[in-house]
Amino acid sequence: MNKERLIFLTNDDSYMSKGFRAAVALAREFGRVVAIAPDRVQSGMSQAITINSPLFMREVEASDGVTIYAFSGTPVDCAKIAFDHIFADRKPDLVLSGINHGSNAAINVMYSGTMGAAIEGSFYGVPAIGMSLDDHDADADFEGAVKYGREIIASVLAAADRLPRPLCLNVNVPRCAVGDIRGVRLSRQTRGFWREDFFARQDPHGRDYFWLTGAFQNAEPEAEDTDEWALAHGYVAVVPVQTDMTDYCMLSRLESVIK
Amino acid sequence: MNKERLIFLTNDDSYMSKGFRAAVALAREFGRVVAIAPDRVQSGMSQAITINSPLFMREVEASDGVTIYAFSGTPVDCAKIAFDHIFADRKPDLVLSGINHGSNAAINVMYSGTMGAAIEGSFYGVPAIGMSLDDHDADADFEGAVKYGREIIASVLAAADRLPRPLCLNVNVPRCAVGDIRGVRLSRQTRGFWREDFFARQDPHGRDYFWLTGAFQNAEPEAEDTDEWALAHGYVAVVPVQTDMTDYCMLSRLESVIK
Repeated sequence: MNKERLIFLTNDDSYMSKGFRAAVALAREFGRVVAIAPDRVQSGMSQAITINSPLFMREVEASDGVTIYAFSGTPVDCAKIAFDHIFADRKPDLVLSGINHGSNAAINVMYSGTMGAAIEGSFYGVPAIGMSLDDHDADADFEGAVKYGREIIASVLAAADRLPRPLCLNVNVPRCAVGDIRGVRLSRQTRGFWREDFFARQDPHGRDYFWLTGAFQNAEPEAEDTDEWALAHGYVAVVPVQTDMTDYCMLSRLESVIK
Repeated sequence: MNKERLIFLTNDDSYMSKGFRAAVALAREFGRVVAIAPDRVQSGMSQAITINSPLFMREVEASDGVTIYAFSGTPVDCAKIAFDHIFADRKPDLVLSGINHGSNAAINVMYSGTMGAAIEGSFYGVPAIGMSLDDHDADADFEGAVKYGREIIASVLAAADRLPRPLCLNVNVPRCAVGDIRGVRLSRQTRGFWREDFFARQDPHGRDYFWLTGAFQNAEPEAEDTDEWALAHGYVAVVPVQTDMTDYCMLSRLESVIK
């Protein structure tokens, strides 16, 4: 008898989000599910870790093949406690993070707690997939994300033995009816940055406050090999993610500058 | 008369840290200083942003050529509000983040709030330098960091016009007497990851808690072109940082896996 697969699930929208529930059902198709998810919304938490305070975990669900813990840390803390505390004896076969409410394409891979947790999971040698739907609505329709997520997970698990590690995928699903999704496109991260427009008001006590808003500025909207192009044209975008942030071109140029 | 340079300063240890004070004095040698730093310790905050709550800013110092604001957000929030709100009319000539208490070499570039703010600053087309000292002590000796930081800042400002953007440097200074530092080495990010060992205890109310600890596992301790090697051998390590996280090797390999 084959040993049942073990799937580690986390996210950044908390264990109560609709996207998390969709991911639980999706992951369960592939094996036993152990989820450790934040106990509150942790969007935009990037690769943040909790250094200066203790963290608390509680079991919120234990049903047939699915165990869910709520954790008081960041998404990356969830991945770390999972591998140190829960998976000390047996590593999972897959890390799945999401399904996020909102796209994490382009530079959002750096701000995203969903991708932070997926990246962290990949550091333990386990294939990791971060999934996001380009729809922030709390009641968003995850049907397309689940359908294409199923295909991508199956492909990754089937090829896992012959792919190097770390292996981490940033999967973004367009906001359209499942029947209108045109397929899956391997892509690279789109160049571009956010530009802010802080919302400035006064609170009831007369203090000025600022609230972050902004818009992503796509530096290469015509480039057909990018994740933003794929999303904008109805494709699921899959970008493999690595974490060597060295700028090798700049390294050469700096040789005449810094001695 | 030359227009006086404008330096934007931030960090993740808050405006009250000794390393921040050292950076204020260092930055002031190069021009007028505007600092927006977190109003409390924000270590390990990575590229995190505050999406779901308002942020408050207050001026804590305005002396000759130095203005310091305390901000209730993350280090990246500090950089964003600076460029949107303070520098809307005139961009600074340099972003300086730090001086951090503790190394941000190797994969720590991803977890670090100091580097998060430096990276964010570089997105606005301004040369950005994140500086860290390999000493967590609140009363650490920043003399070597200031001496070599001065040289690196001068070199970058002198060459700024002929270097491409974004331009972001991760500068790490060894913990030794200034006279024992052997110089500056351009380096690449060391491969390797942290392995956790959560400290588990019970709180006064009988609840289990976890506290993150761990150790960095250097995957290539013999490689002389890495930042960890430089630090371990008494050199200041300078790694240029970029943010295209696409794994291009994996992208090719996935062509036969994901269709």
